[in-house]
Amino acid sequence: MARSGRRPGATGTRERIAAAATEAFAAAGFDGATIRGIARQAGVDPALVHHYFGSKERLFVATMRLPFDPAQLAATLVSGGIDGIGERIMRFAVGVWSQPGVRPVVQGIARSAASDQQAAAILRGLLEATLLPAIRSLGVDQPELRASLLWSLVIGIVFGRFVVQVSPLAEADPEELVTLVAPALQAVLGGPVGG
Amino acid sequence: MARSGRRPGATGTRERIAAAATEAFAAAGFDGATIRGIARQAGVDPALVHHYFGSKERLFVATMRLPFDPAQLAATLVSGGIDGIGERIMRFAVGVWSQPGVRPVVQGIARSAASDQQAAAILRGLLEATLLPAIRSLGVDQPELRASLLWSLVIGIVFGRFVVQVSPLAEADPEELVTLVAPALQAVLGGPVGG
Repeated sequence: MARSGRRPGATGTRERIAAAATEAFAAAGFDGATIRGIARQAGVDPALVHHYFGSKERLFVATMRLPFDPAQLAATLVSGGIDGIGERIMRFAVGVWSQPGVRPVVQGIARSAASDQQAAAILRGLLEATLLPAIRSLGVDQPELRASLLWSLVIGIVFGRFVVQVSPLAEADPEELVTLVAPALQAVLGGPVGG
Repeated sequence: MARSGRRPGATGTRERIAAAATEAFAAAGFDGATIRGIARQAGVDPALVHHYFGSKERLFVATMRLPFDPAQLAATLVSGGIDGIGERIMRFAVGVWSQPGVRPVVQGIARSAASDQQAAAILRGLLEATLLPAIRSLGVDQPELRASLLWSLVIGIVFGRFVVQVSPLAEADPEELVTLVAPALQAVLGGPVGG
């Protein structure tokens, strides 16, 4: 089946797969959901799921409406090495959440993870699949623990700024946040914090 | 009415006040609830509320079943000045949450704050009433923003360890957490991070 993305009706197929995936992730969690099961539910061949979404991680990201691809992001952020990585991560984060429409998505993800064990499992699986390999490539000791701590610190900032909306974090200038938070992220990754 | 705490039935009075307070905080949030209203609901004089609980903050803490007094804690942690404050905070945190029975309380607070605007407002008010004055006394620049960031980072660690239970943070040795997280807390307070 060549270039099925161009056929009329392809949008419908993609949406059917995404709807089946949303349902599967909600019911079985990230680990429990399978490409095969999602394909069956959507009434398509599993190859079509791969065609449209590439991998289970990407499919999950699509259903979460994340405004970026975590695997690609993690690779980009660590590609410059450990120096300045705290600032690169923080600068990326404030860049994402200053986009219109991102705030409710971020709030939704944080709230789902807080109240629902399956949503938490999905986030956890996503972290392990994307951020961890990137942090491992930095060559720091205890990459697994540092990756989970980094993730938790960023979630904490998101939580404080968008969910609990603690003042003045909720209204703080993004540049100021980069300046104050980057050294903390840098420290938890074991890199040089600087002046 | 002298030493009403010694009278038979005093325990019942205290519990009636606590129950009225829990209801009031849930209905009106920390800011909206009043000692006067809580006393009326419990059928006691407002002076009795002060007698048993001292202040609205302490009353809230009692209804939340926090295993410590945030105001006293914050004062203790900053009393040693900025040097090593990240380690003192982190050491206190792991000490609290390793106590039996604390985990469900911590999970409950994090989940309430994530899903409920009023619980979030309560936590926010508590932070502003306790942690902020302590951080201000350190003499750092931007104490308000640093206090809200510190709070968010700690909440993030709690969230990752107890709510989302991301591995290996969820199982990590407390001493290891102190070692890895203290420099991050220190950095966000603008103190010397050290080696």
